Amino acid sequence: MKVLIVLAHPEKSSLTCSLAHIAKESFEAIGDEVQVSDLYAMNWKSSVDRDDFPAYKPERLFVCAASKDATQNGTLTDDVVAEQQKLLWADALLLVFPFWWFSVPAILKGWVERVFSFGFGYGIGEYNDVHWGDRYGEGTLFGKRAMLITSVGGWQTHYSARGINGPIDDLLYPINHGILFYSGYEVLPPFVVYRSDSLDAQGFAQVSENLRKRTASFKETIPINFRRQNGGDYAIPSLELHEELSPGCSGMGLHIKKADN
Amino acid sequence: MKVLIVLAHPEKSSLTCSLAHIAKESFEAIGDEVQVSDLYAMNWKSSVDRDDFPAYKPERLFVCAASKDATQNGTLTDDVVAEQQKLLWADALLLVFPFWWFSVPAILKGWVERVFSFGFGYGIGEYNDVHWGDRYGEGTLFGKRAMLITSVGGWQTHYSARGINGPIDDLLYPINHGILFYSGYEVLPPFVVYRSDSLDAQGFAQVSENLRKRTASFKETIPINFRRQNGGDYAIPSLELHEELSPGCSGMGLHIKKADN
Repeated sequence: MKVLIVLAHPEKSSLTCSLAHIAKESFEAIGDEVQVSDLYAMNWKSSVDRDDFPAYKPERLFVCAASKDATQNGTLTDDVVAEQQKLLWADALLLVFPFWWFSVPAILKGWVERVFSFGFGYGIGEYNDVHWGDRYGEGTLFGKRAMLITSVGGWQTHYSARGINGPIDDLLYPINHGILFYSGYEVLPPFVVYRSDSLDAQGFAQVSENLRKRTASFKETIPINFRRQNGGDYAIPSLELHEELSPGCSGMGLHIKKADN
Repeated sequence: MKVLIVLAHPEKSSLTCSLAHIAKESFEAIGDEVQVSDLYAMNWKSSVDRDDFPAYKPERLFVCAASKDATQNGTLTDDVVAEQQKLLWADALLLVFPFWWFSVPAILKGWVERVFSFGFGYGIGEYNDVHWGDRYGEGTLFGKRAMLITSVGGWQTHYSARGINGPIDDLLYPINHGILFYSGYEVLPPFVVYRSDSLDAQGFAQVSENLRKRTASFKETIPINFRRQNGGDYAIPSLELHEELSPGCSGMGLHIKKADN
């Protein structure tokens, strides 16, 4: 298996970088090939702007149109093309980051915004009455697997079903479902380290062991069973889940298919 | 009233920038003072790194510790201090942005990560058995109001209670609750423009009119009734909502207090 690890932390000695390193070593130990995009080390450009589309001529920048043109015409910038090539090369993607303000760090958000261009990460396929684009279970990255590895300052209970921060799965939904599943990936349950700032040596050893187990079982792990958009569960084009599925319910959990519906 | 508008779009002719401009003019027309932080025009530095803490000495960068030291000792960088001063000056904060990949653009995420430093945006107050920091309804920015203005490419139904993208209020929860309410703001319901890419002149006129109504009624608008963390609704330190409140329920909506609980 080929693995791409995308890492977003400014300190090489951080817990986050250690987790990325452990994952890399674990995969390599079983014969997998690993590439790492260390965004801080690469001095990754975070913000989408006109410089991303050097061949775009109109006076007014329409980001989607500019992104579409550049993807179609092969005029994306070299740094973006290199990342897209890594994504196409890899069978598996791991995003490794600290959970800052309940999401990915800006540098990683900017990696998504620039690399997942129109025609690569979105804006693919036909839009008609039975099929609303190749997305949410289809798309460029279909057939590949992805997983988040993140460290969280708060306690696990703060992120539980009734915890004040909101359930961790719901907080990660915009990433797991909205970015990864959207662009075609099967998404594995995330690896989350809580109370990361107070992790002692014993705690770190346990976390390391748990992570090695997750990488060892990566290929056999059952993905989150997100519902495919064009698989019949949703009305098109409203994209609302049909009433007979989980009737009366709402929220993000709806979009995970259970055994009985 | 004093208003800070934080704007995140690379194109001055964009819908997003037009919305910011309309909001600014509307507030000024009724005698309010407005400052705008146009992040792209300011070439805002998005990524937290060691350069943010010029007085920090240890070899290993601990971001929270470095941020705490810099906030306490007055050694934050000038760009961050200027934004904190604007936040303290303003009675109201508006974040105006395109909803890219189900969140704020990287440049705006980076503004939060750098400006909401330890001791300013988080890490304030006592942590004990009855009070878990001055946050979620308390904090530096208590007594002020905030509101999101965002443009979304998809349809409103895609973001409805059963829509595939997830409910818009849940997608915005990490921002409205996790950033704004967390640091003390009262948060008003967001102003969301759907199908922004296909908005014609008539649609834009309607959106403009709706936004002017929102700014005109800003001071009287009822905020989202998020539950205060230290107000008795949560167990401390688990920060789980007490069982007798909305029993059997879970998810982000739990943390909004209804009339009957």
